[in-house]
Amino acid sequence: MERLTIVKVGGEIIRIPEVRDSFLKDFSIIAGYKILVHGGGSMLTELARNLDIETQMIDGRRVTTEKILKLAVMVYAGLINKEIVVGLQALGVDALGFTGADSNIICSEKRPIRDSIDYGLVGDIQEINVQLLNEFLNKGHTPIFAPITHNGGGQLLNTNADSIAGELAKVLVYDYNVRLVYCFDKKGVLYDEGDENSFISVLSYTDFQRYKENGIIGGGMLPKLDSAFNALSAGVKEVIITCASNIKHTGSGTHLKL
Amino acid sequence: MERLTIVKVGGEIIRIPEVRDSFLKDFSIIAGYKILVHGGGSMLTELARNLDIETQMIDGRRVTTEKILKLAVMVYAGLINKEIVVGLQALGVDALGFTGADSNIICSEKRPIRDSIDYGLVGDIQEINVQLLNEFLNKGHTPIFAPITHNGGGQLLNTNADSIAGELAKVLVYDYNVRLVYCFDKKGVLYDEGDENSFISVLSYTDFQRYKENGIIGGGMLPKLDSAFNALSAGVKEVIITCASNIKHTGSGTHLKL
Repeated sequence: MERLTIVKVGGEIIRIPEVRDSFLKDFSIIAGYKILVHGGGSMLTELARNLDIETQMIDGRRVTTEKILKLAVMVYAGLINKEIVVGLQALGVDALGFTGADSNIICSEKRPIRDSIDYGLVGDIQEINVQLLNEFLNKGHTPIFAPITHNGGGQLLNTNADSIAGELAKVLVYDYNVRLVYCFDKKGVLYDEGDENSFISVLSYTDFQRYKENGIIGGGMLPKLDSAFNALSAGVKEVIITCASNIKHTGSGTHLKL
Repeated sequence: MERLTIVKVGGEIIRIPEVRDSFLKDFSIIAGYKILVHGGGSMLTELARNLDIETQMIDGRRVTTEKILKLAVMVYAGLINKEIVVGLQALGVDALGFTGADSNIICSEKRPIRDSIDYGLVGDIQEINVQLLNEFLNKGHTPIFAPITHNGGGQLLNTNADSIAGELAKVLVYDYNVRLVYCFDKKGVLYDEGDENSFISVLSYTDFQRYKENGIIGGGMLPKLDSAFNALSAGVKEVIITCASNIKHTGSGTHLKL
């Protein structure tokens, strides 16, 4: 089977032209099939602030109101997605931007209200059109996913980019040797949050459970790692967590193992 | 040859849910291949105003500064494009959103400075990837174009939606019987601007020249009609100018003839 690399990167990558260019160049030279999934939360926060639109938070997580969804679609599917597409095209990568609504490629369901908590217009992925994705890949296109999906009934939904990357990886394991690279702002998962160089080279599922219990790993890393281990157990060959400037040398990030 | 309908509509169509839904429904039942091209100028103006970003105008035309381009990409390729895509998907149309950068489908060139007038980051269309467009159409996708193109060198460019519709129509005449429908806010081209019902049923090129000279047709209609007659002389079978609520009954709009 051919190799497919799925890279998840924060939308902030486009903020500084030099950082963006360097990342896109590194991505462009990855051999084999590839898919890029981007986020953009901090740029959305900034736009909402500039427009005086209130951001409601529950336990540190944003509630996607109708107004916030509109801004998310503008920032994610508009600005960030197209800046990445145009940058990759200039590097000879046949980038093609997607939300889940485009060609109905990712269908999701509005997250149900649980314990009276309503995150609003947030979608949990239900179905990915794998055949279509394969057709685009085989035609030589490199799909660039914004973290927006739809419910098939006319509603766009805000969807976590880590989850999109993980779910794409899982459904593609039957057709490719899938390598999944989660980029974040550190070189890897850290033992000691205060020490940039204390990253864990190989993280086993058992160790992950242990580090979770004793608080070495916590916060935003938990859902990321949950979805990463989930992908690994579904047959993804390699899952790596590293920083965006490191995708050429993923050897030095955190490699997960079951 | 099979029929292909290209509809150009203003981005304002998404403002009022009932108007949007009715338009999308009418578009969804057009038989044969179809393409939708949308604008969005007035929504861009509104966002710029809300963000206190100055809009420079030269002779009533907006200058696309770097800041304005970012907003244009957000509003056109993000909000408007995805609201149309998600709405059409719910109606069973396999809509797929595009800017010119996506799959390098429309390449343009920054408009040169003429007589010291610089419209900024505005692109004039240079090349359309017709083969790729045909592949998407034959696969059953309905392309939805935002009025953004790129120069192939990493620069997105603001591009007139009327021109995109006209140029798409022109390059597709070898493969389809092309019908081009320009939607605007009147039932058709008017003899008397004050009288909604005074629209011209059939407008010949000779009449157009005459009406231009004696001032019956002027302003924003001129570039629209120039690009429409241009398409007609390039082999487009039918060019109709009517309002968005009328695309089902285009018989009642203004039909152009050479």
